[in-house]
Amino acid sequence: MVGVKFLRSHSLFGGISDEGIEIIKPLLKEEHFSRGEDIVREGESGDRLYFICEGSVEILKEIKTPDGVAQGVLAILEIGDTFGEMELIDIQCRSATVRALKDVTAQSLSNKDMLTIYKSDLETFTMIILNLAREISRRLRKMDVLVGSSLYSAPEARE
Amino acid sequence: MVGVKFLRSHSLFGGISDEGIEIIKPLLKEEHFSRGEDIVREGESGDRLYFICEGSVEILKEIKTPDGVAQGVLAILEIGDTFGEMELIDIQCRSATVRALKDVTAQSLSNKDMLTIYKSDLETFTMIILNLAREISRRLRKMDVLVGSSLYSAPEARE
Repeated sequence: MVGVKFLRSHSLFGGISDEGIEIIKPLLKEEHFSRGEDIVREGESGDRLYFICEGSVEILKEIKTPDGVAQGVLAILEIGDTFGEMELIDIQCRSATVRALKDVTAQSLSNKDMLTIYKSDLETFTMIILNLAREISRRLRKMDVLVGSSLYSAPEARE
Repeated sequence: MVGVKFLRSHSLFGGISDEGIEIIKPLLKEEHFSRGEDIVREGESGDRLYFICEGSVEILKEIKTPDGVAQGVLAILEIGDTFGEMELIDIQCRSATVRALKDVTAQSLSNKDMLTIYKSDLETFTMIILNLAREISRRLRKMDVLVGSSLYSAPEARE
């Protein structure tokens, strides 16, 4: 099982009390994925958040091209990073495909687990949501910069 | 003062109890901006969230061009939309400039107001954060699509 110290050292678990960590730990599900495997697929449903303990992943977005559909790399995530938080927050389909670049070990939490945390410790639930919101916000800042630069080279993106 | 019914009909205040609305209402600060006025400026500090009650705004991002710096339009926001939530969540500088496209009336909440809500009603605080996180997530989804399409036309954006 993943250690408390490891959890504490990453932003997803920042500001959470010892009692909170003890509530979260037994809910975490350890999962293993092989290099090249799709952990989540764009467009599919899914309410599970993943926290990378070993390995790395690439975030792939489908791109329409004149020849059909290709995949572009939006980001690469490493140990301590999370993915799947958007679907946990907004209950929509997976916004991108996440593929293992190396063998990956991840801890995951489902929407149901979050409900368990909400019911047993509202402060811990709130802190997790705030940490996830900060992470999504950081990503949006990066994407805003990329969109900003693409506006110059590709004005049709403005719509 | 803005009406409870108006607040309730917009996503920022979704799922909040009557008691929660009563706590939030007296904290809201009504502000007026003239057409063409910058409400917030990219790069400046600011911890205030704005909720548009009248008018509309454009979200402008600085773009480096060979001739200097220009501004590109990332989005246009209307009545019921919010802006400034990223800075409230992640305590960083304003990620973009927000300019009034028409005369604007907005209700605003500061970080200090959020602390007041946190202390007096944790459930309401949690619901606001969750609503803000959903909004940021929706925006990130849109930006991911734009970045995805720009990857095809501008491969250098991949970094």
